[in-house]
Amino acid sequence: MLRTLPFIFAGLVGVSSAQAADKPTRIPEAALATAAQLRERALTDDTAWEFVEGLTTEVGERLAGGENDAKAREWVTAKFKALGFDKVWSEPVTYPKWVRRSEHARLTAPFTQPLAILALGYSPATPAGGVTAEVVAFESLDALKAASSDLVRGKIVYVGPRMHARKDGADYGKVGSPVRTKGPSLASQKGAAAFLLRSAGTDDNRLPHTGVTNFETGVTPIPAAALSSPDADLLERVLKRGKGATIQLALDCGIEGEYTGANVIAELRGRGKPNEYFVMGGHLDSWDPGTGAIDDGVGIAIAVGAAHVIKQLPQRPQRSLRVIAFANEEAGLYGGKAYAAAHGKEIAKAVLGSESDGGADRIWKLTASVKPSARDAIAQIAAAVQPLGVEYDAAAPGHAGSDLSAVHEVGMAGLSLHQDSTRYFDWHHSANDTLDKIDPEQLRQNVAVYAVAAYLAAQAEGDFGSAPGAFAQDKAE
Amino acid sequence: MLRTLPFIFAGLVGVSSAQAADKPTRIPEAALATAAQLRERALTDDTAWEFVEGLTTEVGERLAGGENDAKAREWVTAKFKALGFDKVWSEPVTYPKWVRRSEHARLTAPFTQPLAILALGYSPATPAGGVTAEVVAFESLDALKAASSDLVRGKIVYVGPRMHARKDGADYGKVGSPVRTKGPSLASQKGAAAFLLRSAGTDDNRLPHTGVTNFETGVTPIPAAALSSPDADLLERVLKRGKGATIQLALDCGIEGEYTGANVIAELRGRGKPNEYFVMGGHLDSWDPGTGAIDDGVGIAIAVGAAHVIKQLPQRPQRSLRVIAFANEEAGLYGGKAYAAAHGKEIAKAVLGSESDGGADRIWKLTASVKPSARDAIAQIAAAVQPLGVEYDAAAPGHAGSDLSAVHEVGMAGLSLHQDSTRYFDWHHSANDTLDKIDPEQLRQNVAVYAVAAYLAAQAEGDFGSAPGAFAQDKAE
Repeated sequence: MLRTLPFIFAGLVGVSSAQAADKPTRIPEAALATAAQLRERALTDDTAWEFVEGLTTEVGERLAGGENDAKAREWVTAKFKALGFDKVWSEPVTYPKWVRRSEHARLTAPFTQPLAILALGYSPATPAGGVTAEVVAFESLDALKAASSDLVRGKIVYVGPRMHARKDGADYGKVGSPVRTKGPSLASQKGAAAFLLRSAGTDDNRLPHTGVTNFETGVTPIPAAALSSPDADLLERVLKRGKGATIQLALDCGIEGEYTGANVIAELRGRGKPNEYFVMGGHLDSWDPGTGAIDDGVGIAIAVGAAHVIKQLPQRPQRSLRVIAFANEEAGLYGGKAYAAAHGKEIAKAVLGSESDGGADRIWKLTASVKPSARDAIAQIAAAVQPLGVEYDAAAPGHAGSDLSAVHEVGMAGLSLHQDSTRYFDWHHSANDTLDKIDPEQLRQNVAVYAVAAYLAAQAEGDFGSAPGAFAQDKAE
Repeated sequence: MLRTLPFIFAGLVGVSSAQAADKPTRIPEAALATAAQLRERALTDDTAWEFVEGLTTEVGERLAGGENDAKAREWVTAKFKALGFDKVWSEPVTYPKWVRRSEHARLTAPFTQPLAILALGYSPATPAGGVTAEVVAFESLDALKAASSDLVRGKIVYVGPRMHARKDGADYGKVGSPVRTKGPSLASQKGAAAFLLRSAGTDDNRLPHTGVTNFETGVTPIPAAALSSPDADLLERVLKRGKGATIQLALDCGIEGEYTGANVIAELRGRGKPNEYFVMGGHLDSWDPGTGAIDDGVGIAIAVGAAHVIKQLPQRPQRSLRVIAFANEEAGLYGGKAYAAAHGKEIAKAVLGSESDGGADRIWKLTASVKPSARDAIAQIAAAVQPLGVEYDAAAPGHAGSDLSAVHEVGMAGLSLHQDSTRYFDWHHSANDTLDKIDPEQLRQNVAVYAVAAYLAAQAEGDFGSAPGAFAQDKAE
């Protein structure tokens, strides 16, 4: 997951007077009965587990533009074909190729200790020999914003707020992600030599969490890395002694031109309206220290598992189902943006979409951004997944997920199926993102929710409001 | 902690007919009243926390014979003096100097993946270019024992049993430690090229657990390392596919002669019988990936904290209190053995001893190895710590702890104060052994238990049975 979307809504969303006059979208009783069967079948199906087990075992880490980028696409293409999708294809996506070679950090004064760090995506390298400088510490991004350049110039800036584990993962969007994405650029503008943050994570492991940072146009990129939380604690304890702290930082990493990867797409053809489709998926790239199990091999796996149980039905659903393995989400939503650019003109055909990029712990909440006359149909979907422990929050929007956010912004109706994030930020973007962090039982619940939602959207009589610019106000609010 | 002691007892221990005729040892009422005050005072004292905070912040890792060995002794000596102990001295200890420079492992076939490993203590280096060989896997040490040399010769042996978290930490002694200490020697005898184990730990972090291994006399040492548990899972998943697995292993480590360090000892002089003393402490060395917080900086800290609150009393206890920071426990109990050799002849003066080497989670059980006529006094100590949630198991022995096991074997009466080990093996011997794993509140409970036990032993009328050879049968059973 790159970031949680920062838009907060109150009341119904996606309302326009033209849409309000629509005939209500509804889901036929027969479809609801089939969905109940699908739900039970999904709870005993291990296709999703086998997919993510295979991807993490046979491919492993999938840094965008790295040596496994092509290998992972070949693996997924072969798997999609083996699973019997009707059509499998790729659409090219081009992005900067950022390379990590090595990273080291040491506290050198007043005490000597090694520090566990990971360079952030897009960080440049340090000069040969590394950077050795005094640390200037800030409790928050706001404190750094308020600091004078005189205090920061030539120093290594450290920003140390702590994330807390929450079911809705809110601290990532409020605390961790802003420090990581905006901190280095801000520090550079004030003349800092380098930037360190307390990892955007909720664990106490000696495993830092990497992730992308952004340097605004015109800002000189500076070396930027994440400290593991225990190492951040150590640095703070040293600083509390009032004798300062000096760190030696050596990063060998940087952008090496461009790379062209691809979104890999699989389709199960609908029997009634094959040109309309429900979209689901996840991103195929991962950060390199782990194996991209929870972020986000399992997102694709959930979609594959849902499509697989639907494919076992005696007949195909009315509409098509599209499963997308997106390219390079982590370093800037490149796959999602390319998909939106390529498919924006046919947005009405993308009836509804929902992407999983929050691990595979139990889905506990459903929200949607649809036209008002489709709210009853969303309520029908919510009722069908309610036995799986999913609440329906009719007042909040559903942006459809990180990779689908771009296509949602150009008008695709969106459904969000919120996973419990309590454990997710213990592991994401770290070496700990491995298969053992996925609970097969909770994964099956995810597949069941997606299968029910995808099937019912495919069988709905009427649409959900996908149209050019239909959800433009989501962005504005 | 090097190992849990493997001796299991039933019934009373340390019985001899001569001892049985003794006048019962007893603790005066006044001492019990003072102990109740000490208990409450210890629960608000942070001397132990400050000690372990300082050691882990200002020194960090303390590999025996490494660059921090001398630095840590200087730090502890200065701290003992600053805390006002009456006498502080060092006693030399000599041990092999094992050095870790680097370690790398990769799965190279049928898939390519990096593997997180740590070389085991005393592992030799691989030849230049590393060892690349097929893996032969065993579920247990017994399965390896039963295997023919033909199956093992030239291969990388992997032994993969899993430890489970338990309050008494039993799986370390039954599962993890035997595989690590005996596995490489056994594999070498069957002609293996190298040895890997699933880390002797209970966590699912991508942080391997190192620890010592032993090569029996006459056995050729082979490269030996621990895989993190998720990496062990990966290897097992690969092997399950039936296409074998090849690993490339490169270790740069080995023994570089000898090193002379020291046990650092501090004494608080008793006012009545200053030549008799209660012994407590921990080991100052640690494994190098972490900072030796739970293993075992905190062991020394608990003893220091207990001595400190006792020192605040209006008068000194009858007997002396001795706090020992032992040298090199991890690679073979060198400090403990040297101490036993130096002080064995005056064993009767070491009235009772108890060492902490199991972290600082709540002490839940008290056991002792004392003469029968001191059982009532032990029951009095147990009653005094019962309000702190400590049970008394009168049927089990108390070996006094890893570093004191050697001096217990030559005749010192022993008390064991058992910490809850449920979390301990998640972190020990890994990079995760850092200060944040210590809960200050539970640490204070540990200090309170030690303070009460130390004070009451110092005030006891009569002794606990320390005498040359007094507990020889502990070893035999």
